[in-house]
Amino acid sequence: MTTPLPPHLSEATFSRALTRFAEIVGREWVLSTPQDRHTYLDAYAVGSGHEHMPAAAVAPASVEEVQALLRVANEFKVPLWQISRGKNLGYGAAAPVMPGCVVLDLSRMNRILEVNEKHGYCLLEPGVGFYDLYNYLREHNIPLWMSTPGNAWGSVVGNALERGLGYTPYGDHASKICGMEVVLPSGELVRTGLGAMGGNVAWQNYQYGFGPSWDQMFVQSNFGVVTKMGLWLMPEPEMTLQAQIYLPREDDIAWAIDELGELRLRDVIRHPFVFGNYLHDAAALTQRSEWYEGEGALPDSVIEQIIRHFNIGWWKFRVALFGYEEEVRAQEKVVRAALEPQLGSELNFTSWRRGDPLEQAAARAPSVFALQIVNWHGGRGGHIGFSPVMPTDGQLALAQVKRMKARYAEFGLDYYTSFTMGQRHINNVNLILYNRDDERMVQNADALFRTLITDAQQAGYAEYRTHISYMDPVAASFDFNDHALLRLNEAVKDTLDPNGILAPGKSGIWPRQYRDQQRGSEAAARYARKEV
Amino acid sequence: MTTPLPPHLSEATFSRALTRFAEIVGREWVLSTPQDRHTYLDAYAVGSGHEHMPAAAVAPASVEEVQALLRVANEFKVPLWQISRGKNLGYGAAAPVMPGCVVLDLSRMNRILEVNEKHGYCLLEPGVGFYDLYNYLREHNIPLWMSTPGNAWGSVVGNALERGLGYTPYGDHASKICGMEVVLPSGELVRTGLGAMGGNVAWQNYQYGFGPSWDQMFVQSNFGVVTKMGLWLMPEPEMTLQAQIYLPREDDIAWAIDELGELRLRDVIRHPFVFGNYLHDAAALTQRSEWYEGEGALPDSVIEQIIRHFNIGWWKFRVALFGYEEEVRAQEKVVRAALEPQLGSELNFTSWRRGDPLEQAAARAPSVFALQIVNWHGGRGGHIGFSPVMPTDGQLALAQVKRMKARYAEFGLDYYTSFTMGQRHINNVNLILYNRDDERMVQNADALFRTLITDAQQAGYAEYRTHISYMDPVAASFDFNDHALLRLNEAVKDTLDPNGILAPGKSGIWPRQYRDQQRGSEAAARYARKEV
Repeated sequence: MTTPLPPHLSEATFSRALTRFAEIVGREWVLSTPQDRHTYLDAYAVGSGHEHMPAAAVAPASVEEVQALLRVANEFKVPLWQISRGKNLGYGAAAPVMPGCVVLDLSRMNRILEVNEKHGYCLLEPGVGFYDLYNYLREHNIPLWMSTPGNAWGSVVGNALERGLGYTPYGDHASKICGMEVVLPSGELVRTGLGAMGGNVAWQNYQYGFGPSWDQMFVQSNFGVVTKMGLWLMPEPEMTLQAQIYLPREDDIAWAIDELGELRLRDVIRHPFVFGNYLHDAAALTQRSEWYEGEGALPDSVIEQIIRHFNIGWWKFRVALFGYEEEVRAQEKVVRAALEPQLGSELNFTSWRRGDPLEQAAARAPSVFALQIVNWHGGRGGHIGFSPVMPTDGQLALAQVKRMKARYAEFGLDYYTSFTMGQRHINNVNLILYNRDDERMVQNADALFRTLITDAQQAGYAEYRTHISYMDPVAASFDFNDHALLRLNEAVKDTLDPNGILAPGKSGIWPRQYRDQQRGSEAAARYARKEV
Repeated sequence: MTTPLPPHLSEATFSRALTRFAEIVGREWVLSTPQDRHTYLDAYAVGSGHEHMPAAAVAPASVEEVQALLRVANEFKVPLWQISRGKNLGYGAAAPVMPGCVVLDLSRMNRILEVNEKHGYCLLEPGVGFYDLYNYLREHNIPLWMSTPGNAWGSVVGNALERGLGYTPYGDHASKICGMEVVLPSGELVRTGLGAMGGNVAWQNYQYGFGPSWDQMFVQSNFGVVTKMGLWLMPEPEMTLQAQIYLPREDDIAWAIDELGELRLRDVIRHPFVFGNYLHDAAALTQRSEWYEGEGALPDSVIEQIIRHFNIGWWKFRVALFGYEEEVRAQEKVVRAALEPQLGSELNFTSWRRGDPLEQAAARAPSVFALQIVNWHGGRGGHIGFSPVMPTDGQLALAQVKRMKARYAEFGLDYYTSFTMGQRHINNVNLILYNRDDERMVQNADALFRTLITDAQQAGYAEYRTHISYMDPVAASFDFNDHALLRLNEAVKDTLDPNGILAPGKSGIWPRQYRDQQRGSEAAARYARKEV
């Protein structure tokens, strides 16, 4: 296989650029062997993932090195793809949208710069992992809780930058961002919010600033490289209660989402939580072959078997309550009154009080257990997430389940879904699990995904996040006024990044250098022609 | 007095532009008499306010008219200054930063496009006032509560766009924005968030979207004209409790801010509230001459008299609790446990339950009563707000009070302050009250304001919002990396608004057409030379 190169660059020019990179970060931190390149591919990709092959990677240790790298990238027109720790699993991991990018790997920048106990915040570099922060808080006996996503392998900063979700009241991670330091594509350093004043003492206390507020512009974005992020942490509560709840029937989602939505809207339940189907347990704990060897999606009879075996329902979710004991007990009453009449049984809450072992509290330690699901089919397991946003509405949710389950069946794939409950919305995260060694299954997964984008748009739903292979068609589904918002993003992109060097194609935003070429690319064209 | 004109425009050219505007909106909605111009000045300005004299105003009735006006403005290079209802009192009201702008008055666009009871949101045009929305909700018997600012004369949308504050759990108005429709300076129409997908049904349910999130970029901004805004409303709670609390001594602020900060951080008290000094009551209910006729700031002896007379303390604040009855009663216990030992007395809560008259609930109906304070000195009263953001910290707050009170005294002005409590920060809103007919007092007010900007910066505090006369020096105080954030804003401004037609100078952001001229302006230069 030939070395992938940045578009328009000769091997000699690229080699000179790498030499310059090495002068900045040291030779050992320019990673350009074939094996290096492969480590930055998505291990769960739909297909080989080689269409996202980077040309190399470079790993700076400081903000100054990031700035210097960006300046050289501008000089040589080398496109970069920034990652925090590269664990954006289900959405492309560390791999760039465009092949031939150099991965800007920030995982060496892993300092916890500040943890403020009184005000409940931290200031982090992008390389800090969930385990790092968790351990730091425990080792220093700091009574602040972090929110961890289902798979906590990755970066705290990176997860917030992708709008990742956790399951405490601080679980909408992007909403807890407070102040950033960002290297712009030019290499220029900015601080957002109150940090735009040198020496400001409230940078991590107040989310805005003076004038337009930039933080959320660097989220799911290729407008800059985030080198520091302020993030709010939750003060340890006095008490938590949590209950695991099972609902026996598919249709139960209709009443449950409405009741739970009301409790979320009224801040009785204050955390995002996963309302997930039977396949969550089955795929994490077993393999498909233990249940069924036939073609196509699992038949309903097998689904019934699974539900009986694990003694779970069609749906499973966990609600938790956090606060002072009086508050928690009051919320418990409200939750019981809302749910128990329909459940027909009493909720079984388990409690934790300050001082009890933390494992019993309603806050998860980081874990990667959920990743077991990729082994469902055997072979080299893969998964991608299809994640439209819906209003919190039981009837809409039920209709979505019926439509989606039928679509999965049409493409012969098992329906894995969850409805992660926000205050007024649901992130309907659907995973597609496949065996990467089964070419037909992989093709079906791709075709299913493309169909789901169209289906969602027809229902009036848009994705909140997507895999690097589908950023163009998802971006294309944002079509109001001939894609006005995308054109706005591209205008800003061209201004901030005139050489088009930073993360071309991220969130469907292409710099002008690659725009026409990409829009004309085979994948996008197929989608546009509705041939999917 | 000669007609103020847009810079670089002849009277004849400007006249032709007005004719074109009239073709779009109708002749009666182009307002260009001297009297018209005066109605758009700041009635409370420090000085005459004539340095902010608009050339005219134009009032469109629809999005299409806004788009058409912007296109003509581009053609003729006429700078516009968009206002919602123009009641940004204390911060410049309807007047533009730069004289000769044409005020783009959106107050005729006053439709309430949607109120969604189930999901708790509304979709508004910028001309909808607080009274309008309040009346609409009551008349249609919709159990959603709005949050109103101290002076509720203005626009709901406009207030959120200036990061105005109210006093319910939805009181951080900018944080409740969910989706916008915006006319860019070019006349192009965009929708942000999920609205960027035509026909999306969750536009007002989810605050982000796919890729960079723009909503907060149009706040305190001159990047576009907001023509629709989604805003979250609070579902009517089952019960509220509220208590008015007085603290006798200046120093009480230290313990009180720390205790209250902890209750805010832990979401027991969930609303912003004003922690204000004695002058709030005195200035709203009486005139200064009833207390004191001498020169300089009120002496401490008179302050004592005021405090005794009204039987208030040095500090006054009102905390409220919202929710289901069990929750509210639980929160009450936590609040009592936190505050009563230091107060040495029991809190006196008044309650409201669903069905009781709304006037008794802890949610204010719109009111303009607070505006009475401008009559404190007699004459034509004026006020401006100096509003730095601080971390929630009792010792810092006390130090700030001592420093500020001394500064006010140094300039012979009465100290009017409030600390509006956010979750981790305080908006320290200080009003300067003056008699506009007293030239020396006005000069002192101006000099005090400029001194406060420098003082705040030295203490590490920045303003969250400022008057149009001080946007340049405040913007200049954001000095990290040679004003990197301002340069970023200006780069985007020049891209989106190549002709520099929208709100030049808003938040200190000047389009390139006016940049050098303004940066070299007398006021900015004085500030830069620290001659203030």
